[in-house]
Amino acid sequence: MLKQNLTMLCDFYELTMSNGYFRNGFYTRNTYFDVFFRSVPDGGGFAIAAGLEQVVNYIEQLHFDEEDIAYLRSKNLFDEKFLDYLRGFRFTGDIYAVPEGTPVFPNEPILTVRAPAIEAQLIETFLLLTINHQSLIATKAKRIVRAAQGRVVLEFGSRRAQGIEGAVIGARAAYIGGCAGTACTLTDELYGVPAGGTMAHSWVQMFDSEYEAFKTYCELYPHSSTLLVDTYNTLKSGVPNAIRVFKEVLVPQGITNFAIRLDSGDIAYLSRQARKMLDDAGLSCCKITASNALDEHLIRDLIMQGACIDTFGVGERLITAHSAPVFGGVYKLVAVEAPDGSVIPKIKVSENTAKITNPHFKKVYRFFDNESGKALADELCIYDETIDASAPHTIFDPNATWKTKTLTNYTVKELQVPVFRNGKRVYELPSIHDIQAYCTEQVSLLWEEVQRFENPHTYYVDLSRRLWETKRLLLQDCRG
Amino acid sequence: MLKQNLTMLCDFYELTMSNGYFRNGFYTRNTYFDVFFRSVPDGGGFAIAAGLEQVVNYIEQLHFDEEDIAYLRSKNLFDEKFLDYLRGFRFTGDIYAVPEGTPVFPNEPILTVRAPAIEAQLIETFLLLTINHQSLIATKAKRIVRAAQGRVVLEFGSRRAQGIEGAVIGARAAYIGGCAGTACTLTDELYGVPAGGTMAHSWVQMFDSEYEAFKTYCELYPHSSTLLVDTYNTLKSGVPNAIRVFKEVLVPQGITNFAIRLDSGDIAYLSRQARKMLDDAGLSCCKITASNALDEHLIRDLIMQGACIDTFGVGERLITAHSAPVFGGVYKLVAVEAPDGSVIPKIKVSENTAKITNPHFKKVYRFFDNESGKALADELCIYDETIDASAPHTIFDPNATWKTKTLTNYTVKELQVPVFRNGKRVYELPSIHDIQAYCTEQVSLLWEEVQRFENPHTYYVDLSRRLWETKRLLLQDCRG
Repeated sequence: MLKQNLTMLCDFYELTMSNGYFRNGFYTRNTYFDVFFRSVPDGGGFAIAAGLEQVVNYIEQLHFDEEDIAYLRSKNLFDEKFLDYLRGFRFTGDIYAVPEGTPVFPNEPILTVRAPAIEAQLIETFLLLTINHQSLIATKAKRIVRAAQGRVVLEFGSRRAQGIEGAVIGARAAYIGGCAGTACTLTDELYGVPAGGTMAHSWVQMFDSEYEAFKTYCELYPHSSTLLVDTYNTLKSGVPNAIRVFKEVLVPQGITNFAIRLDSGDIAYLSRQARKMLDDAGLSCCKITASNALDEHLIRDLIMQGACIDTFGVGERLITAHSAPVFGGVYKLVAVEAPDGSVIPKIKVSENTAKITNPHFKKVYRFFDNESGKALADELCIYDETIDASAPHTIFDPNATWKTKTLTNYTVKELQVPVFRNGKRVYELPSIHDIQAYCTEQVSLLWEEVQRFENPHTYYVDLSRRLWETKRLLLQDCRG
Repeated sequence: MLKQNLTMLCDFYELTMSNGYFRNGFYTRNTYFDVFFRSVPDGGGFAIAAGLEQVVNYIEQLHFDEEDIAYLRSKNLFDEKFLDYLRGFRFTGDIYAVPEGTPVFPNEPILTVRAPAIEAQLIETFLLLTINHQSLIATKAKRIVRAAQGRVVLEFGSRRAQGIEGAVIGARAAYIGGCAGTACTLTDELYGVPAGGTMAHSWVQMFDSEYEAFKTYCELYPHSSTLLVDTYNTLKSGVPNAIRVFKEVLVPQGITNFAIRLDSGDIAYLSRQARKMLDDAGLSCCKITASNALDEHLIRDLIMQGACIDTFGVGERLITAHSAPVFGGVYKLVAVEAPDGSVIPKIKVSENTAKITNPHFKKVYRFFDNESGKALADELCIYDETIDASAPHTIFDPNATWKTKTLTNYTVKELQVPVFRNGKRVYELPSIHDIQAYCTEQVSLLWEEVQRFENPHTYYVDLSRRLWETKRLLLQDCRG
């Protein structure tokens, strides 16, 4: 299995570059890197930032073991002095980040690193993979949970996840995005995400009859029975047997908290028929759970078709973000620090204008309307800019500068919080339950139009005049 | 980070069912489960089995820690006697599996478990997630490597992977599928998959000029320089600076082993122009590497358009199997053992005929043509059936039984090998390099028609007469 210290989970070029920075003295130079992404998966209007807790754990454990040094030496590429430097390597820089669960938008820094060149470079791969993975799943979960319109959504996908962490940490991210629980036991044990589950088809097959399988289960777990009714024939065998057992075993005890699960066939049709059979039997308290290749689109369709489903168990299409399985976060150098401490902005140019970076050490401000409470826009500013919320504030589109909007009667909030200063953690990690609640609340502050599944309204992420001007001058320099 | 013992990485229902099996005495009963899948991702003609090594490690470490027991007790669902039983829990059964790197087809068991009910049930989730993940990536890698037609393919996707293992183990699976190496350092350190890499854009940005950045790099790593030429302007700045530095630093030392890397823009056009510039400068030895959202389709197109690329660096679309990110392996009960040791076949019926399982404890035979050496068909047999290769053998399509084919002059090979017997490992794990070589060889034994990317010929996976008859009778029983 994997080792605990994940310092070596880095692209090899981080090490070749670091060896170079060490030799030419750049390693003492402070650099600034932003993590940001360029588009929301599935064409959505916003993403959910997640993964910060795992980044914090990683940074706090960052070091090279003797076996890592020995492995690196065996490559015959690295200076002995560099390898010796790695022995004492720790993270000594600053990290700022948006809290987990925050709705975020393209091209704004969701995490910023200020650290000596080698430290900032070496952590690139792990930071990206962690934030990309969890933001991907949290964003997808939020779509699915919104599609369910208040019905319960459970994460069921471990067996189809892309590796151990795909399952375990994926279920954590799904909870941030609003899932009520998971089937993954380890995610409960390690992260406190409630795990649950009752039976597979094999349980039913193990007994001589479906009736016997159901009866045994209800006698064993009278307070948490969900019977899987599709092993043989859902409507002819599964539902009638479930009704019989509920009435024989649970109803006489006054228990009303039980359910059936549909896992194949036409869920819309079967759920309506099953609902009618349950109601006709006087079991209107019985809930119906559905699973089987669900996602936000299928759930919306099922609800539109009057499917009678109380709980959706969502598997592979959530845990792999099936329809768009990559969150394209990148890590780009935005500034370096001169020996006198001044910050020198840097830009990466590209033939593809969408790939040109926003330079400089920045702050992100989010404006909220004082009347509706809704989020109005974000603005990227240079790190030393402040905003006077008592005065009107004009924002403008960085790509179409004649598009301006003047904000009045607003509150402004800085989006990133300090997480590390000089290598020391200065941020208290919130509980997973608080993160989920915060996420729900913050998403409710987005306009409906931004939350639309297809072709949502594009939320404004603008640049301050000073930042825009800095970018323009840097671009001019590069072209000239 | 994750703990080493992954016994708790299971769906919660494995535990509720196991507690039930414990209480009703089923736990002493031997059961048979098959891992199989129903369709090949991306509509391909075959998949590559992978993940067995991680399954073996998991089985050998399987146990419940005291903290696991305490966690389970806190759920107020499990009998104390069951929790006590878990303290001594070990895997005591048998496992048979196809070796890693084997081409496999829908509906044939790629792994079979024979074990007491609880043991067989508890390992379901981990087995599936491990085999699904690695088979997914190995299968995708094999497609991409075949598209490259002998050119080198490197795995570059860690930062976009779905979690730590998505990156680290994903790179292992990509190597099985034929990638020549990875950017992931930890996969090299842990699994011996060669890691490499040179520079990111940040390296170039850190210097006052691109020329200086390139020069410093070539001086530092004269024998492994790949210069990234697209930070500012590929053809006007990047390639000319690379040529200048190669000629100033490397050529005078007689070094011919260097390259440039293209990471944006139109790779077909840029690679042809760059090739011409390099050739005109007398640097025909200089290789060209390309990266940027590549997959098997783009690589085929690039080659068809005459792109001059020697090495493809493939990232997110390989490490997440972007176009089809789920390998749908399932784990189904196929038989139980009576107290007298006789094997009682079990079937799972479904309204969807494709979801009806192949019952019984089975063997898988693969037939090879003695003349061409090519694989002709696979046949699923009941465990005690043998095939006399000296006699003609007639196979038939299980869904269209009038379609028959008589094989003569063939060799027959059993596909699964024993991995565990009575809980003891009886299989020596091959090296990752041997697995890759075996995979390459075995894929070469498939007909071209089966290897086609779109609408491949469907390889025959048939049932023996005895197995087909057993299945028919079980279905009849269920319907009646």
